[in-house]
Amino acid sequence: MTAKQIPFTPEEYKRRLRLVRTAMQASGLDALFVTDPSNMAWLTAYDGWSFYVHQGVIVRLDGDPIWWGRGQDSNGAVRTVWMSDDHVHGYRDNFVQSRVRHPMQDLARILKDLGYENGRIGVEMENYYYSAKAHLTLIEELPAATIEDATGIVNWQRSIKSEEELIFMRRAAKISDKIINGLVERVEVGVPKNEIVAEILRDAALGADGHWGDYPAIVPLLPSGSDAAAPHLTWDGRPFQGGEATFFEISGCYRRYHAPLSRTIFLGEPDDTFKRAEAALVMGLEAGLDAARAGNRACDIANALAVPLEAAGITRGERCGYPIGLSYPPDWGERTISLRAEDETVLLPGMTFHFMPGLWMQDWGLEITESILIKPEGPAECFCSQPRKLFVKTNEQAIPRPSHIGGSDRLSDDLGGFEPSDDGLSGGKPH
Amino acid sequence: MTAKQIPFTPEEYKRRLRLVRTAMQASGLDALFVTDPSNMAWLTAYDGWSFYVHQGVIVRLDGDPIWWGRGQDSNGAVRTVWMSDDHVHGYRDNFVQSRVRHPMQDLARILKDLGYENGRIGVEMENYYYSAKAHLTLIEELPAATIEDATGIVNWQRSIKSEEELIFMRRAAKISDKIINGLVERVEVGVPKNEIVAEILRDAALGADGHWGDYPAIVPLLPSGSDAAAPHLTWDGRPFQGGEATFFEISGCYRRYHAPLSRTIFLGEPDDTFKRAEAALVMGLEAGLDAARAGNRACDIANALAVPLEAAGITRGERCGYPIGLSYPPDWGERTISLRAEDETVLLPGMTFHFMPGLWMQDWGLEITESILIKPEGPAECFCSQPRKLFVKTNEQAIPRPSHIGGSDRLSDDLGGFEPSDDGLSGGKPH
Repeated sequence: MTAKQIPFTPEEYKRRLRLVRTAMQASGLDALFVTDPSNMAWLTAYDGWSFYVHQGVIVRLDGDPIWWGRGQDSNGAVRTVWMSDDHVHGYRDNFVQSRVRHPMQDLARILKDLGYENGRIGVEMENYYYSAKAHLTLIEELPAATIEDATGIVNWQRSIKSEEELIFMRRAAKISDKIINGLVERVEVGVPKNEIVAEILRDAALGADGHWGDYPAIVPLLPSGSDAAAPHLTWDGRPFQGGEATFFEISGCYRRYHAPLSRTIFLGEPDDTFKRAEAALVMGLEAGLDAARAGNRACDIANALAVPLEAAGITRGERCGYPIGLSYPPDWGERTISLRAEDETVLLPGMTFHFMPGLWMQDWGLEITESILIKPEGPAECFCSQPRKLFVKTNEQAIPRPSHIGGSDRLSDDLGGFEPSDDGLSGGKPH
Repeated sequence: MTAKQIPFTPEEYKRRLRLVRTAMQASGLDALFVTDPSNMAWLTAYDGWSFYVHQGVIVRLDGDPIWWGRGQDSNGAVRTVWMSDDHVHGYRDNFVQSRVRHPMQDLARILKDLGYENGRIGVEMENYYYSAKAHLTLIEELPAATIEDATGIVNWQRSIKSEEELIFMRRAAKISDKIINGLVERVEVGVPKNEIVAEILRDAALGADGHWGDYPAIVPLLPSGSDAAAPHLTWDGRPFQGGEATFFEISGCYRRYHAPLSRTIFLGEPDDTFKRAEAALVMGLEAGLDAARAGNRACDIANALAVPLEAAGITRGERCGYPIGLSYPPDWGERTISLRAEDETVLLPGMTFHFMPGLWMQDWGLEITESILIKPEGPAECFCSQPRKLFVKTNEQAIPRPSHIGGSDRLSDDLGGFEPSDDGLSGGKPH
């Protein structure tokens, strides 16, 4: 078998386990069942695209963690986790998407074998990969246990990055920079969006600076013109248009660690509204970066950002950032702190955020963002090194350039579709 | 605003809604809250990478469906769904990842406003994007309602594809074929895996046959050698080795529709074990395709596959396929039927499956699969047109070719890492 390539040192995993156990003890938990794939990987190094079936890691107050999942994925677990093979438990395949069995029945049996039949067991109730059904099944199978919400217990321990983790994030940032450089070079009027995405994805996997690229937890987002009012649209085959801005939200990824970045490219000459928004946003970013200091609070960043924006008549309703690091789809945030007025979490050295003050207005959007590190002294450090500005390309030709996939019918499928009537299919009045 | 590009005709969405309502009535439901992003898109055309926050579609027995989600994503909803804008409800951003509020509180208010305070409301309890916490919050907020498990109600209606959907799947299949062709061309001894992935991802987005490519719901899987025992490993920067097989599980995607395909490439001369397994697997596939007829059952495919495999001494423990079509991460399966001995679902014309009899053995793996369509008469049709065999490349050089990202330190990060001791970090004995 190929030698295991555990990403971090044994000391790093010991540190993580120690943090989680301290939090478990503070919550009075005997055991913690971790289903968030990011938490699983952070604790055990497990890596695989298997989170579409039930799986998890059992953390106890002593002994190594136990990986639990589908039988066929236990082959992946013994190849990736730092624990010994006897800490890997696979369940039978007929538990998968069965109409008569649930994998939590198997987990309950293991938890009983481990002596937690009457224990206090924490579960991540607010997690993509711990379904309502999983929870109710586990409760039913362990009637004498106390099963309680431990959402975020592991996520919070991930907040402060070790030096080893920061190395990975800096590698991810180099990839993010490479992607943005490629975009600025390639985006032109008439180029179909999917062709630009093809190069983004290629750059992301090729990696940068001598290091290979992993898959980011979110695909590239790149809405244009009025669609840029909507932050989470992906792409299609339509060409970029002159006179429109497109924001690009992307991230390089190195061994599951991210450094997201957004920049906006305007093809043509932006109008005054756009220029004023850019100026206010850059001022806001700079004010926010200056407020992003150890000892300040999450809300201080949000409040600093708001001042120049509001002076320009822009009121944002959304939070302006979240913690980042190790992640699996569907999100590259850590789901703990939010950079917003009501979050008073104190910033500590080693915390990392995507400072993400997207402007999603009625019929346009602008994103200029930074992945940042809270330093022991002074303002935050930015992981990437892109100019903090709107990129404007005015020397564009309005004629579509030749395409990779060529042919005049290239966009035939994009020009079809139907235009719905205002009142939808039923023709009924709104309720 | 850019004109909406609804993928399907109004008739197609009416058909879908009619099917779901019939199923709701059979279950005695007044309303159905749909959280599976694939179900949401299938019903309403909603498309966006926003499923990392709580969102859903409310289906009623009359009136158009209602999209519900984060305020900023309602901008994406009005741009993608076929319903009128007043059928789009966004919740305030301070519900997102809050420690004091939950988005289900907002949903409960809307359900009350719609008159379901005492209603029977179906929810998808076994779904990635309906958390245990969401369920308990909804129950708490709607104490007089009957909230019951309606997992799969929509998924089952998706089983039989319309002609419109089959067009999309055929386009996806062309992309899958293009990806496999590229792999067979490019994979060589010494080429780093991530460089091959870069080209897979690029091919997937470029699309094929004049149609752009969307992102598949699963990233490329491509374990080599003994790692191919593990079905869900992704990639790193290590080069392909001679004397090893690598299976590639990929899918083209056209507007969220998939046609997954796996092929295995052996670099060098496979040994007899491998050749015998290939022969048995190809016989099993052909037997399975022949059994995949309207009127037969899901288990008939699995049983037909098993005969030649068992004759060759290979016993698979896993199901050998699942339905496919429209999907979002983390899975491109529909999570209804499983091709396995205990599933007696009758096959109907228009059903589509990934017939996926992966062999994941102790220290090797082999995948040759087909995306298939059940026809009114005769055996299943394969969407893709790849030779059904192990691809063998013997004319390889053992010398690494020049790399895109070059440099002798390219793999420095891959040769590091630590080798864990047999008993993990704690050094303790197994429990």
